[in-house]
Formats: sequence, structure tokens, C-alpha cells
Amino acid sequence: MNKMKSCRIGTIQMPVTGNKPEDLAFAVGQIREVSGEKADIAVLPEMFDSPYDSSKFLEYSDRIGGETYRRLSDTAKECGIWLIAGSVPLLEDGKLYNASFVFDRDGKEAACHKKVHLFDIDVKGGQAFRESDTLTAGDHITVFDTEFGKIGLCICFDFRFPELSRVMTLQGARILVVPGAFNMTTGPAHWEILFRMRAVENQVYTVGVAPARGDSGYISYGNSMIVEPWGNVVYRAAEKPETRVTEIDLDRIDDIRAQIPMISARRTDLYQLS
Amino acid sequence: MNKMKSCRIGTIQMPVTGNKPEDLAFAVGQIREVSGEKADIAVLPEMFDSPYDSSKFLEYSDRIGGETYRRLSDTAKECGIWLIAGSVPLLEDGKLYNASFVFDRDGKEAACHKKVHLFDIDVKGGQAFRESDTLTAGDHITVFDTEFGKIGLCICFDFRFPELSRVMTLQGARILVVPGAFNMTTGPAHWEILFRMRAVENQVYTVGVAPARGDSGYISYGNSMIVEPWGNVVYRAAEKPETRVTEIDLDRIDDIRAQIPMISARRTDLYQLS
Repeated sequence: MNKMKSCRIGTIQMPVTGNKPEDLAFAVGQIREVSGEKADIAVLPEMFDSPYDSSKFLEYSDRIGGETYRRLSDTAKECGIWLIAGSVPLLEDGKLYNASFVFDRDGKEAACHKKVHLFDIDVKGGQAFRESDTLTAGDHITVFDTEFGKIGLCICFDFRFPELSRVMTLQGARILVVPGAFNMTTGPAHWEILFRMRAVENQVYTVGVAPARGDSGYISYGNSMIVEPWGNVVYRAAEKPETRVTEIDLDRIDDIRAQIPMISARRTDLYQLS
Repeated sequence: MNKMKSCRIGTIQMPVTGNKPEDLAFAVGQIREVSGEKADIAVLPEMFDSPYDSSKFLEYSDRIGGETYRRLSDTAKECGIWLIAGSVPLLEDGKLYNASFVFDRDGKEAACHKKVHLFDIDVKGGQAFRESDTLTAGDHITVFDTEFGKIGLCICFDFRFPELSRVMTLQGARILVVPGAFNMTTGPAHWEILFRMRAVENQVYTVGVAPARGDSGYISYGNSMIVEPWGNVVYRAAEKPETRVTEIDLDRIDDIRAQIPMISARRTDLYQLS
């Protein structure tokens, strides 16, 4: 395939208010906005139309073909844009998942990642959270094909596990997209080095999109970010709502890989990852 | 085994002058100095008594039982200290390796890591280097046992590969020690995030020891560093020669692992690393 060499990514760091129809309408408006700025791909944050609260996921959940699903699919088609639709609490066969749908330029579902590592933490003097109280973990790794090459998709806590990003890279992903919502404990400590290091070690672009920082409930760190394969931050939001289109140069991946041959220099005789 | 809960690490960021007897004598003096400050482990930098220059590795090489080897073993025994002896060009069976010897408190060789990923880079407008012109790569992963628990050992470029640090962690390593010599291109770009991210994702301590910055030949970035398992830098040298003893609290590893269960939350049904 003759791949496109540059790609315009629209990151939508949006407020999540707890009013589901309002948040969904806001997301749709922002997708239209980045489309107007010629974005190729729009990315929403994790849990963009649901509070990040285990006890509310069922109430705010969507289904395949449900209201949120249809509006997003319709908007992708209307705008002719790739849509990586953050995540929603997905109800399927009586189970709840933290799920990220991808719609192609025709509005067709191209992928769905269900968070595979559930976020159960209890930081002393900080944040406690147990997704596994209400959510079921997904059972597949998600890489999908586009005219820009393959894109790997995972959600928030998934990104901490180096194996997952490496496997997506080995499966051909050149951009790793991560809807996420780090908090005010984990965000300042780990968000930036995570996006930078995964980009450096895999020599890919990394894209993180978070909800804007609210003032109650689970407080999102914000700081949506795009990092290029040498580890430079090419876009970084602050904590407020911010929608931005950033153009990335995909040739840079091959350029960096030629300079430091990380992928080909792996010692697969000493360690095996699959 | 009833493991010790704290450990004093003496990092020796020393100048490498190209005068081998002088550099070796300086290293021995610094080991004695950190021993006087009750260090449990002394760590030297990569290529501490050889210029970092492929064309000179043979001339500066040592053998098992050679002059450098014996002096280091004797000094470890004399001081009753663990010595992670940076690295030397090792000549063995007609082949040259970038090799890191470990001597225990009795001066006995406890481990030897031969760099497994050779450093061949050609950064545009920056540094070019081809270790593989003269060196042979090692063929094993190195984890050794101490009264502080297991320690994983790798050399410089090895540390960029997330698989290797993860495998060492899964083999029980609680401290990853890395003699390294990043340069003025890769150092500012990647050294800190690498030591911080490997500590965070594996929930271990990371220790990097580099030569002090010289003014000719291969210029070392310096910045020897110790990072604790939450990713905080607990010690960082600047570019000048600096010997320092830092006490680390090994209980912090279990504390952090209880807060965010990274190791136990791995999805070994979705990816396999061995």
C-alpha cells in the first residue's frame, strides 16, 4: 500500500460534565470542528460521556448500535473522518467493558478495543479506584489498518505495560493511540514519561487524549499529548478543555529507525515476546 | 532468605583519561572511598579504564584473571564490598566483549554480563558509532543474588529494550544496575526518561553509572542516576566526576507494588514474554 506520509490528528480534550446528552453533543461538535480544520483522525478521551466512577458505568453505558454509538458513527461518516471514539462503558451480553470504538471515514466500525488491564489501585494518601468492581476486561489486542499505516489502540492503564505497546509495534502499528484519564497523583508522576518512553523505545508516534480537568469526582490530569519517535513532545495541552489539530510526519518513523535500529536489533534469541 | 531492607549504593562517576593504569588506580581509590562511607555495593561506569572507541578496545582489553580483573577482585575482598565493575573490553577466546564483572564481598566473581545489544547508531547531525565493528555480543541475561535480593545487570544500549528489563524483573531482580555511557545526543534526549520509566513500569530501583564528561573523543553525558520505583530521581550527578553513596529503601518496592499491582496485573494470556 502506498501510505500517506503525513497525518492530521485532532485531539479533543473535553470536559465531562455528567450530563450524557450534553457531553455527547459537545463531542460531536468538536469532531465537526477538527474535520473543518482538515483533520484525518479525531480522538476523544477515555469515558468522554460518562463520569469516571465505577458505580455509574451501568447508568451511563451504551450498546453496539446504541445512541452514542450511532451518533459517533453518523458523525464520522458525515465528516468523512477517522474517529477513535475515546471510550464508553459498553454493555454487552450483560457485561460492562471500558470500550473504545473506531469508525472509519464511512462511519463503519473498524475496531473496538476493550481495556485489557483493569485499573485497580490504592495509592497511599492519593487515589483509590477499582475498575474491576464493575467492569470486565477485554480479551484482545487492537491494531487496525488505515491509509496512514497501522494504528495500535489501548486504554489508559493498558499503556503502562511495555509488552502491550511492543506487541502492537511488532504487529506493525506506527501510531499508538491511548484515550486515558490519569489522575492528579499518577498524572504528574507518570503521564509524560510514559508517552515519551513508549514513543522512544518503539520508535512510533504516541497520542494520549484525556478529559479536561474537572473540579469534583475523579479529577483528570488532562495534558493530552502527542510525542514523536525521538521522544519530543510535539503537542501538549494544559488542564483546560482544548481541541487542536496537529500534523505529524510519518516518514520520521523510518528516519529514526534507520538512525538507531531498535526494532531490528532485538535479541529474539534471548527473549521471546508474542 | 531474610533480605536486608536497605542498601547503600556507591556510584562512581569517574573520568576516563585513556591512561589505563591511572584510571584503574583511580577506580580502586574510589571503591575504597565508598567502602569507607559504608557502601554495600560500588558501581563503576561503562568502559572505565578504556576509551570508548572501537578501534582501541583490543589495546585496552583485559582477560579473566588479568590485571584489571585481579585488582578489582582484590579490592572487593579488601573492602568486603559488592563491586559491579562497570565494564571493560574483555578478550576471551579471541573475541572482544563489552563485559561487566561482579565481585562479591569475598572478591569472588559472582556474575559477568556481556553486552547483548551492540550499539550501532548513526544519528543525523549527531553521533555515529558501531560497536559491532570490533565487539561480539553476549549470549545471556544476567541476574545475580545478593543479601538485598536479586540484582539485574545490563550495559547501556541493552537498557533501551523493554523486554530485557522486564525479563530481569520477572526473574526476581529488584534493582537494575546499568553501567552506561550515553552521548551528548542521546543523553539529553533519553537517559533520564529511560531510567525513570524502567523503574516505574517494573517497580524496581534503577541505577545508571556513566563516565564523567570529558572534552575529546566520545563525550559521555554523565548524569549518573538512581531512580526509585515510583519514578522519582533520588540521586543525580551532573557532568563532573562525582562519587556518592546513596541509601535506598528496598521495602519501597513492595509498597509501590501493593499500590499499583503492575507485575501481577500482566495479561499473560494475551502476550507472552520469556
